[in-house]
Parts: sequence; structure tokens; C-alpha cells
Amino acid sequence: EHTFDLTAHPHTRLNILTGEWVLVSPHRSKRPWQGKVEAPGLAQRPAYVEDCYLCPGNHRADGTQNAAYDGPIAFTNDFSALLNDTPSGGANEDGLLVARSQKGICRVICFSPRHDLTLPEMEMPDIRKVVDLWQNELKSLAAVPYIKYIQIFENKGEIMGCSNPHPHGQIWASEDVPMEIEKETRQQRNYFQQHGRSLLSAYLEKELKEEVRIIAQNEHFVAVVPFWAVWPYEAMIISRRHVQHIMQFTDVEKDGLADILKRLTTRYDNLFQTSFPYSAGMHQMPFNDGEDHSEWHWHMHFYPPLLRSATVKKFMVGYEMLAHPQRDITPEYAAARLRELPEVHYKTAEV
Amino acid sequence: EHTFDLTAHPHTRLNILTGEWVLVSPHRSKRPWQGKVEAPGLAQRPAYVEDCYLCPGNHRADGTQNAAYDGPIAFTNDFSALLNDTPSGGANEDGLLVARSQKGICRVICFSPRHDLTLPEMEMPDIRKVVDLWQNELKSLAAVPYIKYIQIFENKGEIMGCSNPHPHGQIWASEDVPMEIEKETRQQRNYFQQHGRSLLSAYLEKELKEEVRIIAQNEHFVAVVPFWAVWPYEAMIISRRHVQHIMQFTDVEKDGLADILKRLTTRYDNLFQTSFPYSAGMHQMPFNDGEDHSEWHWHMHFYPPLLRSATVKKFMVGYEMLAHPQRDITPEYAAARLRELPEVHYKTAEV
Ligand SMILES: O=P(O)(O)O[C@H]1O[C@H](CO)[C@@H](O)[C@H](O)[C@H]1O
Ligand SMILES: O=P(O)(O)O[C@H]1O[C@H](CO)[C@@H](O)[C@H](O)[C@H]1O
Repeated sequence: EHTFDLTAHPHTRLNILTGEWVLVSPHRSKRPWQGKVEAPGLAQRPAYVEDCYLCPGNHRADGTQNAAYDGPIAFTNDFSALLNDTPSGGANEDGLLVARSQKGICRVICFSPRHDLTLPEMEMPDIRKVVDLWQNELKSLAAVPYIKYIQIFENKGEIMGCSNPHPHGQIWASEDVPMEIEKETRQQRNYFQQHGRSLLSAYLEKELKEEVRIIAQNEHFVAVVPFWAVWPYEAMIISRRHVQHIMQFTDVEKDGLADILKRLTTRYDNLFQTSFPYSAGMHQMPFNDGEDHSEWHWHMHFYPPLLRSATVKKFMVGYEMLAHPQRDITPEYAAARLRELPEVHYKTAEV
Repeated sequence: EHTFDLTAHPHTRLNILTGEWVLVSPHRSKRPWQGKVEAPGLAQRPAYVEDCYLCPGNHRADGTQNAAYDGPIAFTNDFSALLNDTPSGGANEDGLLVARSQKGICRVICFSPRHDLTLPEMEMPDIRKVVDLWQNELKSLAAVPYIKYIQIFENKGEIMGCSNPHPHGQIWASEDVPMEIEKETRQQRNYFQQHGRSLLSAYLEKELKEEVRIIAQNEHFVAVVPFWAVWPYEAMIISRRHVQHIMQFTDVEKDGLADILKRLTTRYDNLFQTSFPYSAGMHQMPFNDGEDHSEWHWHMHFYPPLLRSATVKKFMVGYEMLAHPQRDITPEYAAARLRELPEVHYKTAEV
């Protein structure tokens, strides 16, 4: 076989959002695995846990008592990586040792009072409340004049460094625009200036025509395995409408976001019949930097580590750290597997 | 306290080799940990294991029988991510779906016939033989006209995705220059053009004067926790002489490299009294791209994940994947801890 074929031959793919490359080795999925196997997560958790510092009414690590909350709540992280009162300053020794002080605010968002639920197991109206809370949080953080970027994210599962299984996400808002956002701003701006439309609108059009990497869609959002996916079952949620940030979403769009979130994460859980670990987060425009950012197109990334089963993950190690990321199965294969799964959660499916 | 202080206040630091930033949160090391705890590695392994596919005389996954080797050996990876005979080609749909075919060669290097050893537990003359083999491998791979970059690396330990505990490293040689090397080439070239000396010579001079981030040194090499370290106990080995690649090292320099490798990895093992996991690899100039690359300064990176003990690691997840890397303890603290450790391996130390 001597014609180059994306489904069979090693190749690199370009991430148009960052300008970076990933190495794809489609022929390599048959590699035997004698390495690390993860312990499967606990199948069923109780709805309330006495020593969980996020359950309603409980005391947190710093002594604060949680409200007896019955919907999602947000509060400032007791162990914030960024603090509101950091004095400004920095260092620069001949351009060799360079540092900048960094102010910020870190928030925790409990998705539900129930300790035993995760997004795919929550009801649509309850996920919608999380979307509303994200909007409110963004609004109040963007009103802080020194805040330039607001990163909303979730680490789900022990193997993603999640320190408490109670369903929760985080928000880290910072004085500077983080690197990944700088890259995405540059790439989107270049495209927008050249073509007069957003990069992700053009990309989405192509994906909807080709269909091979689409996982699920509704009237307002599309879930797709990006052409340049690094993690085995990586996905993106892209809004059909070109908006810059989550505050612009209307009521029906917010319902649509709750819907696509539930459907994508349910497919994830169903893939290996396990509570599927991932880090996920939304990318949107920077604030308070004096620019209008019409190039920005809101989207959400899902980076899940599992590769072959509930216990075998992909390691981003040696070559990945020193050279560039590498993947074995193709994004097209991953999308096909996710697409063929039901949207009823395996725990509630009738036998 | 309202003067900015690098040892107390959150800040970002610039990686001068890549142009990227890391967020440092020195105040955060007191955070309680209720998350994932790793299983400690097996304390003692046998010198020979019947079903290890890397032990001398054994059969590998593809049926090949290993030689009855008594020093380090190299062979082509049975599950190479890159292949020598990939047809050339690619795809480009309106700059949105972009791919390039990628040829290459993947090699495995067994450091020792002994299944139970790792670099810190090997004798200096035996580590020196590994250095000689790296040189020979680089020489023959650089002679392949299409090979532009040769990545020599090691994944050590289960939690670094190492699929076999037999001490071994890898080499992935590719048709294109990987991203991390592109970044380091750009940064080093800019500095070299402006200052007429290598970026790492200038950096090393500064570190040797300040001393606070130095771990160990000999006549030819220095081990340092870089100012911009991302991983808790990240380190770099930098050659005092400005050379572009490992083939240029003289006999005494090769002895010096074996010496600093043994001393750094012994300190690592002694830190938490465990076989210290890491991904490590050397960075050197690209080949066969028609450029002279005098800007390049050979160095080696060590990326170890452990944070607080043999079982608690740092997770590079949510914020790190979506925004930029974050660390808790300062590089200066990490260097001080590594510096105060003995250079006799804890397993052989008298009680
Ligand atoms: O080649 P190995 O040892 O089978 O695999 C290991 O190293 C590779 C190169 O860093 C990684 O891509 C794999 O994820 C890791 O498990
Ligand atoms: O903030 P947490 O949940 O304690 O910590 C987790 O998320 C952070 C943000 O992604 C990471 O820096 C930590 O390594 C991870 O364990």
C-alpha cells in the first residue's frame, strides 16, 4: 500500500486553535500493555457523606460551615492558587530570570448538593442551573477591573487529580491572560482578519459536512472530536452561534448547553461503563484588556485520559513532554465509537 | 507584608528556553490532600525475570529473541510510533484540516542486562557505556538523510507510563522537527544573534553565581532546578561547554555526564526513599535541515511527578491543560531539599 492514508499511516495534524501539532500513529493500537492499570472508581457513592467538606451543612477545611444548599453554589477556594491582595512587582535579571506578580480569584462551584451525582447523572433542569451559575460568576468576576481572564473548568475523577468526589468545578480568574488563551486569540484573530468570520464557524461547517468526527448535536451546539485531538476521546463543544463568552447565551441556548453537556458526558460514561474521568473547561474571550475580541468564538474542551478501558489510560510522558503529543487511535475512530453509544446512562438503562 | 516577594506571593515565571510561562503559588503547599494516592513501587525486583521481554535471551512480543547481552543494547521498537517506510503525502482543506505524513525510526535502549537496576543503582563505568551507546545511536540515525530530529528519552516508573520495569530508554527519530525543539531553537537563536553567546551559557553563569537553584556539579556538567521549573522537583543537566549535540562530547565529558547522571538520580531516589519516577530526555540540535545551529546548547530535562511523598504526585490537569502550568513549592525550595541529600543511594547506605 503506497498511497498515504490518514487512517493507516503515521502523520502529524495541525491544531488550528493553537498552531501546534500532534503525532498520530494509527497502526499502533495493537501494542500490548504490561504497564500501569488504574483501580476502578467506587461504583456507588452515598448521597451525603459526613466528612465531605463540600456536602451541605458540613464544615470545610478552614472551618467555614457550608449552607444547607439545595442547588449549585459557588464560594472562594479555601486554598486558592491566586490571591486578591498580592502586591504587584516582579523580577528581570538580564532577560534570564523573569517573573511577574500575579493577582487573582479562585472559586469552587458545587454542581449539586448530592454527593453521589455527576453531570451525566443530574437532571437537565439541574444542569441548567449550573449553566446559570457559570454566567453569574463570569459576570461578577469580569466586573473586577484587574481580571483579564476567567477560566471555568472541572477536574472529574481521582486520576484527574480531583481531590474530592463531590461533583464540583472551579474558576480561576487572573490578572494576566494565560498562555493557551494567548495562542487561541492569535490564531482566531488571524483567521477573522483574513476571512471576516470566526475560525470555529468555518471549522464547524466543514465538520458538519464531513460528519465523521461529529458525536452529537442540537439546535445550538455541536459535540465533535477535533481533527487534531490529542487525548484518545478528546471532544469539543462548539456553539453554532459565534458568541465571545457565556454571558451572551440566551435562555434557549442555555438549555441547549445543558442538553449537550448531559448527552456528551452520558456517552462518555457509557463508553467503558464507568464514571468517565476528564478535565474539561470553556474557552472564551479575555476581559478588561481594552480589546473588542470579535474574533473569539466560545467553546469547551474535554480532555479525558482513558484509552482502552476503565483502567488503562494514555500517558502523556517522555516523547510527549520533550517533543510533542502523540496518539494511537484516530480521532475518526474515537468519534465513531462515541457516536454509536446510547444516550441513556448505563446505570439507569433497563436490562 | 506588602512588598512583592518571590518566596511568598503568587507569580508567573518565564521559561526562557520556550518563551512560555508557569504560575507559581508558594503559599499553597499547606493544602490538605484527600485525592489519589499512588501504590508504592515494588521495593526489590529480581535480577532476571522469565517473562520480561527485555531480559537477555528472552523472546520479545514479536517473537524476536534477545541476545545474551552483557552491556547496554539498542534495537528497533517492535511497536514503533514512527515507521521508516511511510509514504509521503498530506491533507489541507482550506487551512482547517491540515495533516502531514511522518516517517521515522523508533529505538529501544536497554541500559543493563540486570532487570533489578536503574541508572542510580548502576556503576559509573556501566552508565558510561550507556552514554557511549547514545552517541553511537545518534551518529547512525543522523546519517539517515530524511531524519531531522532525534529524541533520546526515558520514561521511568509505572506512573510515567513505563510499560516494562526493565531499565530502558527510547529514541524516536522523525522527519519533522518536533514542536518543543522548534520553540527552543527560536529562543536560543534570538539570544545567540543578539549576544554572540549561547542562552544557556549566560543562564548557567547566573545560576552558578546565585547558587540557590544548583543541585550538584562536576567539571563538565551542572544539575540545576530551572528558575521556570513546572514539575515539583524538575531539573536540568547543562553542559558547561557550549556544544550542539552529544556526539561532540570528549571522553572526559562522557565520564562527567555518567557521573552527574548517577548523582542526580541518586538524590532523586533518596528524596522520598523510593525508585523516583520521571520522564527525562536530552535536547540537542536538529540535523539535516541545512542549518548550522551554532545557537544550540545541549541539555537534558528531568520531569518527575512526585510532590510530597512516594505516593502523592502533582497533577497537571484542568487549569494546567486549559490555561498554563501551575506549581506549589518554589524551585528554590525544591533545589534546597535536593541539595541537602546524600549522594549514597539509600538502599546501599550503611545504617
Ligand atoms: O513506548 P511505550 O513505553 O510503550 O509507551 C510510553 O512511552 C511513549 C512515549 O513517551 C508514550 O507515548 C506512551 O503513552 C507511554 O506509555
Ligand atoms: O484545586 P484542586 O482540586 O485541589 O487541585 C487540582 O486542580 C488544580 C487545577 O487544575 C491542579 O493544579 C492540581 O494539581 C489538582 O490536584
